[in-house]
Amino acid sequence: MLVVKLGGAAGIDFQPLVADVASLIHSGEKVVLVHGGSAAADELSHKLGYPPQHFFSPSGVKSRYTDKKTLEIMLMACAGQLNKLLVAALQAQGVNAVGLTGLDGQLITAKRKKAVRAQKDGRVIVIRDDYSGQIEHINSGLIQLLLQADYVPVISSFALSEEGEALNVDADRVAAQVAVAIKADALVLLTNVPGLLQNPADHSTLIDRIAESALASYEDVAQGKMKKKLLAAKEAVAGGISQVIIADARKKLPVSQALAQEGTVITP
Amino acid sequence: MLVVKLGGAAGIDFQPLVADVASLIHSGEKVVLVHGGSAAADELSHKLGYPPQHFFSPSGVKSRYTDKKTLEIMLMACAGQLNKLLVAALQAQGVNAVGLTGLDGQLITAKRKKAVRAQKDGRVIVIRDDYSGQIEHINSGLIQLLLQADYVPVISSFALSEEGEALNVDADRVAAQVAVAIKADALVLLTNVPGLLQNPADHSTLIDRIAESALASYEDVAQGKMKKKLLAAKEAVAGGISQVIIADARKKLPVSQALAQEGTVITP
Repeated sequence: MLVVKLGGAAGIDFQPLVADVASLIHSGEKVVLVHGGSAAADELSHKLGYPPQHFFSPSGVKSRYTDKKTLEIMLMACAGQLNKLLVAALQAQGVNAVGLTGLDGQLITAKRKKAVRAQKDGRVIVIRDDYSGQIEHINSGLIQLLLQADYVPVISSFALSEEGEALNVDADRVAAQVAVAIKADALVLLTNVPGLLQNPADHSTLIDRIAESALASYEDVAQGKMKKKLLAAKEAVAGGISQVIIADARKKLPVSQALAQEGTVITP
Repeated sequence: MLVVKLGGAAGIDFQPLVADVASLIHSGEKVVLVHGGSAAADELSHKLGYPPQHFFSPSGVKSRYTDKKTLEIMLMACAGQLNKLLVAALQAQGVNAVGLTGLDGQLITAKRKKAVRAQKDGRVIVIRDDYSGQIEHINSGLIQLLLQADYVPVISSFALSEEGEALNVDADRVAAQVAVAIKADALVLLTNVPGLLQNPADHSTLIDRIAESALASYEDVAQGKMKKKLLAAKEAVAGGISQVIIADARKKLPVSQALAQEGTVITP
């Protein structure tokens, strides 16, 4: 069993990925796909005249400000458009995909971050209308129910709060938690770079292998979104996943090449 | 087992429906929900500066013109926003809802209408870029898989074409075909009027009971969307459903009151 997190950044053509995943599935592999969709959400936000906003935590981590309107725009772009176009593309390749969000069947429950600390004009402010969450539980039963009936789950990274609200959750972390919950053999985190780079400007500085015990020493190397991928990798390995591969979504066979260790491989 | 098609028209508050459905489910009823979302799609279309377009068939039936861009807008509004907000509202009432479109798991397959005849300026033209379809098959296996595991399917009315394309399909017809496929005990078609009215302007002229054999004689009474509801009712009864109730979505307990025969009841 394999969990693959798609690259959500702008400009990634998902046809090679879909074809690669289809051939893995047709050869008997069980696969669960997870996707975000920040680029699609940004695009729709701009079109609707409600541009995306971000904030920085006191420690400097950048996050999307997700008020109720932003959350609905994200549901439209990610759960409506992207998820369904992915499902259709997979179906066209003979893969019986089922698109879900974490809301569906309580697939992902999360705790809403009701007070988020952020930097503003040099001061720390508290944001109280943010609809993002910290993952609490994965309903592996629903994923297994579908896999056993030969369906391929395609999960859009939203979660359900205790109060029954839709929440935005980080897709890399979703992929890690899903992998742990279903005891996957590997987790592939696709992105638009070849893996973790010693120097982000130089693709030849790929770090090809990291043991879990050494992960902490790479935290400063990782920039931006790569920080969240390392965190997800750490959670997955700590949860029993024997390999996490951070790999390039733009390759010809992105998942197969990741499984052939092209990328940054994180192991226990 | 019960299939309920929600009213998709503008201004219908779905909280009473959600509460009513939740109490039926908590008392042991198995329910499948089906929804369209034309009002939500229209709203989003306008916001995106791509207003909805319609056409009339040579026989005078009004349909939505669904080019690729319109279809994507519909996926966003119906499968993304409306479906997920419904799922969240049901979850908040303790109902373990799973939102799906007909694309997911090949729940609904349809034949794309590749050449649609329409009236334009007094002539008949052929529309070739429409992504709407005629329902061919319902995957009742997936619905039963979910129902047996105590999930409540909430189906957004899109279908998958043979070529793996997303298609728009009529939600009333989806509800009828789903009811037939799972051998439901009843089909409730909710709308924003009390049922079929002899005189659409006078709500006291409700036709409370129609036998299938007499349906044809009411075809001229039905106006606009009601025509499609009668067609759906006919298909359902012909497929073995023992009662179809066209009822008012705006009542306090819309489904329970429909089951208590408040509305137009169509029987074999």
